[in-house]
Amino acid sequence: MNKVSSRKQIVVIGAGFAGLTFCQSASGLDADITLIDRQNHHLFQPLLYQVATSGLSAPEIAQPIRRILARQKNVRVLLDEVTQLDLNAKTVTLKNSRQAPLSYDYLVLAMGARTSYYGNPEWEQFAPGLKSLDDARLIRHNVLLAFEKAECDPDPAARQRYMTIVVVGGGPTGVELAGSFAELTRQVLRREFRLIDPSAARVILLEASPRILGAFDPSLSEKGEKQLRSLGVDVRTNQKILSIEPGKITTAEGVIEAANIVWGAGIAASPLCRQLGIPLGRGDRIEVAPDLSVPGHPEVFALGDIVSLKDKNGKIVPGVSPAAMQMGRHAARLIRDELRQQVAPGSVRRAAFAYFDKGSMATIGRSRAVAQAGRLKFSGMIAWQMWLFVHLLFLIGFRNKLAVLLQWFYAYVTFRRGARLITGRDKTFVIK
Amino acid sequence: MNKVSSRKQIVVIGAGFAGLTFCQSASGLDADITLIDRQNHHLFQPLLYQVATSGLSAPEIAQPIRRILARQKNVRVLLDEVTQLDLNAKTVTLKNSRQAPLSYDYLVLAMGARTSYYGNPEWEQFAPGLKSLDDARLIRHNVLLAFEKAECDPDPAARQRYMTIVVVGGGPTGVELAGSFAELTRQVLRREFRLIDPSAARVILLEASPRILGAFDPSLSEKGEKQLRSLGVDVRTNQKILSIEPGKITTAEGVIEAANIVWGAGIAASPLCRQLGIPLGRGDRIEVAPDLSVPGHPEVFALGDIVSLKDKNGKIVPGVSPAAMQMGRHAARLIRDELRQQVAPGSVRRAAFAYFDKGSMATIGRSRAVAQAGRLKFSGMIAWQMWLFVHLLFLIGFRNKLAVLLQWFYAYVTFRRGARLITGRDKTFVIK
Repeated sequence: MNKVSSRKQIVVIGAGFAGLTFCQSASGLDADITLIDRQNHHLFQPLLYQVATSGLSAPEIAQPIRRILARQKNVRVLLDEVTQLDLNAKTVTLKNSRQAPLSYDYLVLAMGARTSYYGNPEWEQFAPGLKSLDDARLIRHNVLLAFEKAECDPDPAARQRYMTIVVVGGGPTGVELAGSFAELTRQVLRREFRLIDPSAARVILLEASPRILGAFDPSLSEKGEKQLRSLGVDVRTNQKILSIEPGKITTAEGVIEAANIVWGAGIAASPLCRQLGIPLGRGDRIEVAPDLSVPGHPEVFALGDIVSLKDKNGKIVPGVSPAAMQMGRHAARLIRDELRQQVAPGSVRRAAFAYFDKGSMATIGRSRAVAQAGRLKFSGMIAWQMWLFVHLLFLIGFRNKLAVLLQWFYAYVTFRRGARLITGRDKTFVIK
Repeated sequence: MNKVSSRKQIVVIGAGFAGLTFCQSASGLDADITLIDRQNHHLFQPLLYQVATSGLSAPEIAQPIRRILARQKNVRVLLDEVTQLDLNAKTVTLKNSRQAPLSYDYLVLAMGARTSYYGNPEWEQFAPGLKSLDDARLIRHNVLLAFEKAECDPDPAARQRYMTIVVVGGGPTGVELAGSFAELTRQVLRREFRLIDPSAARVILLEASPRILGAFDPSLSEKGEKQLRSLGVDVRTNQKILSIEPGKITTAEGVIEAANIVWGAGIAASPLCRQLGIPLGRGDRIEVAPDLSVPGHPEVFALGDIVSLKDKNGKIVPGVSPAAMQMGRHAARLIRDELRQQVAPGSVRRAAFAYFDKGSMATIGRSRAVAQAGRLKFSGMIAWQMWLFVHLLFLIGFRNKLAVLLQWFYAYVTFRRGARLITGRDKTFVIK
């Protein structure tokens, strides 16, 4: 409502890990915080691939933002979209709110990343990415529908195409998707069809570079690839994508016909970054100052995976949720200090952000994963158990944790999946 | 595949309670059964209102039809839509399957009902009904979105409209929806908004006849109405609907402005019934013979709520799931006998269907419900516990039962709801 108040106004854009953690760390702050997101829910993105592959239902990995922040009275949540950012006038214009633009004393940019097709935006309609619950439901819908279509189709070539899933990108998202699709077709769906054999389905993982899981140690890339192969995934490295058409993907090696092509290859920062009128780095990322502020605008912080940064120890900060949360806490601490001292933004010396790397992990399937933390490397069952433990620990909200645990336990024991629904009106069917 | 086989061919249309129970009762039958449904899942419809009101997530009340029937080798499941029924040629034509029409020896019609607007089909777009998961998600989406819009809107009149929900129809569905919406606004959403007070929302239940829950004893109608009022629902009887426009519903008493109007008033049989070339009863229902066969076609059975029937004891069979399941078992028994005796359909005398009425119940909210069984009548906590018990008992599949039980327990203890997600692409937003 842009009310006239002597309290400082903080506007936060985006309720992902960075924006939400910022708000939670700003608890008790003597300021009016307005948190804006296009969704009503905070999403536990590391498990989004499970919704895409029928393992979990959407509400199990998402929580209403309002509920998470219900008790924090200095935060107001708006479901809305930012149409204009004016760093000079210090205003944020919203799409739906019928009111004057919001003025701010501090602005926190945490819009997150979107799927990037490296200059081929037309591929999106044939190879959906995985950033939102709607994306995940669309992929789930299309994959399950393809097997239903195969069961109805007497033409063997068409059946082969329906039963082929191509995942583009051998990073953690692509690996998790490919492994989970392989399990879905080989273990979950088998014996339920009469004409087709889902375990004859092909899951192909395409990676442009010479190895998958490039952010990990080469020994883990190798182990990850081996684990994927043991699940039946056809892993192909050194694959440059030349074109994607409906039901068809072309690499230098030839054409693959596939009813489902899923894009897990690249991300870029939110398009809002381009409105800032400042030079941007790779993938439209903001090259922030060491304190996470936008150069020339000490009152504006940028957090999470819209940021390109080497931290004070010279370490490139990766676009992962622990980094986003650490950034949220860092910015909240700096603002809290300045409000307490009643000084203008950036007028006293600010601490530089230091990223604490807890390690990284990727799950490949039941009892299969890779993990590394510093010099320690793990793979197989032990890595998978670590992955399970860490993800349950971080899931927000008691109910979700318990429900997800039960779901996994059930899936583990029975080889079934609970969320195998094909829903959505006809217009969302994009299968070819 | 319409393969030439000496085995008898049975085609079943619809995998609701009637069609699914028929297939399960036909286990071990020496025949090829083809089960066709437009959805890949069987839906536990009595709990659908909980998805619409954010209490349960979609996968919790739905199971893939294939999974349910995975071990029953004489059943083949096709996700497809029937475009043509020819009772004389004994063929069923499908929309997607690229093959010749299916021929049958027996046909089982169990397509179920759809929402009916009593000759005003144009009302549907402004007042969605509740028959599928997509319907439920649309309603959930629109109701939650309306409160988000109210929080963004400085105009008090607009806010009032956003915060008004009208439910049309005082049968069990309407009563369950209205009670659940009242709880959502008064207990679940409160304290999460800063500008609006969701507990000031209006939930209005409109019923055309002089009392709600007309199928129940008048004393229970009265108790049900009292329980609804205690939840804050504005119950209005004797309300004839004159028109529905975007965000506006007009009765003889005047106009109500409401961002959400939900239609729980009427159902009619599937439009496929009109293709049969036989005279139909009220709401396009098929007036079946006492053995549940279609008059003149002993090889065709009609089951569930597409049927209009007085059973052999003169009792009108209601369109509820126990009746549908009993009909499914009855038809399976008759066909089994004829196949065993190797006689033509209907050539020996068939038993008439007898409906065993186990009673009926409607839930109104936490600790509130009405139930009657024969001359016994219950209301309040005891009726609610009966309702809870019966619904858990009948939910198909272990996982769902446990997850639903946990969900309810959690909601009961904390007054929260787990499935409060606003998802779906912009084009599905129909809120005005």
